[in-house]
Amino acid sequence: MDEGRRIPQATVARLPRYLQALVEASEAGTLTLSSDDLARASGLNSAKVRKDLSFLGTYGTRGVGYNVAELTTEISGVLGLTDDRAVVIIGVGNLGSALASYEGFDRRGFKVVALLDADPEKVGTEVGGHVVRDVAELDQVVAEHDVTFAVIAVPAANAQDVADALIHAGVAALLNFAPTHLTVPDQVTCRTVDLSTELQILSFYEQLGDGPSAAVG
Amino acid sequence: MDEGRRIPQATVARLPRYLQALVEASEAGTLTLSSDDLARASGLNSAKVRKDLSFLGTYGTRGVGYNVAELTTEISGVLGLTDDRAVVIIGVGNLGSALASYEGFDRRGFKVVALLDADPEKVGTEVGGHVVRDVAELDQVVAEHDVTFAVIAVPAANAQDVADALIHAGVAALLNFAPTHLTVPDQVTCRTVDLSTELQILSFYEQLGDGPSAAVG
Repeated sequence: MDEGRRIPQATVARLPRYLQALVEASEAGTLTLSSDDLARASGLNSAKVRKDLSFLGTYGTRGVGYNVAELTTEISGVLGLTDDRAVVIIGVGNLGSALASYEGFDRRGFKVVALLDADPEKVGTEVGGHVVRDVAELDQVVAEHDVTFAVIAVPAANAQDVADALIHAGVAALLNFAPTHLTVPDQVTCRTVDLSTELQILSFYEQLGDGPSAAVG
Repeated sequence: MDEGRRIPQATVARLPRYLQALVEASEAGTLTLSSDDLARASGLNSAKVRKDLSFLGTYGTRGVGYNVAELTTEISGVLGLTDDRAVVIIGVGNLGSALASYEGFDRRGFKVVALLDADPEKVGTEVGGHVVRDVAELDQVVAEHDVTFAVIAVPAANAQDVADALIHAGVAALLNFAPTHLTVPDQVTCRTVDLSTELQILSFYEQLGDGPSAAVG
């Protein structure tokens, strides 16, 4: 998608917030939203909302605002969320279990299709509606469900091995919750989530004493 | 901290990544890092690193780079991480339990001092080295430990009530993992973490097929 290349990273990071506001508006039966509405729902100012959406080639209608259904389709398309994407979670500790039951994934076009773990005590147990499978079956699971996304929720010491196995199995995009940097080939996309990052950013705004209520991004 | 006000939000969001790279360098016995080293360790380009650090008034030494110890102190100071900050976690489900044991918090200047839950079956049990306390004791726990930060890991339906109770107890900064928008007074800082956001951003870069390995920010 060539168009995507011109969208700034910071705008991409805010698109999920707009999408959330749009989904909530749609569920409430709202047909159009002004940039002020979108700004309020996503904790930003309306000038930033208009600027961000202009990168998508979307300008709304003066005095009316943005069509909720059209903008939802537009943003979902840009984010590649038009079909359900199959996700596997590797590591069924507390974090993996929490992610397996996380209600937000399904609503955003991600379908958790399997949980895998290396621990024989966990394999075969049921977590979040899935029977945990052996990580040794990874290649088979990936082929079975046409998996493109994997969530890594194993201890830091095992994360690189798991990433290597996922890449070998053909998974193209990794979301890593282990607190360690992973090395991946150029054609693989990898994001590392450091849960303490959010607390550090919170700390910055808290000490300023004027931190605006903000979602992540 | 007046200086903080001039640092762009996007730079603030990257400071934790630099801090992580510096801590790792320090643990490895490295005394100086070039902007190239910092860029490689944090998945950015070196021009961005130099620009970000210039907002802190830090320019490094030509041909030598940045002094690891000095830059660590500088960034920690800007982020308000110079003393251990007391954190409580409300909600001891899978996510709360995972956060309670998350090794990243302690290393970044956050000390989890208490876990609280409303479920009588959980109160009194031990999780991550803490005996879970009754959320009814919140005011007492906050006063006891001089708590400034709280992590909300309860279901969405209960999150606003928990936030209100935390604010009433005097907590000034909330990190909310419940997938819902919270309303807080101006003097309170609140960030909502949507775990599906990261998957959506990953999806964008994956479909471009050129997503650089990147940490969150």
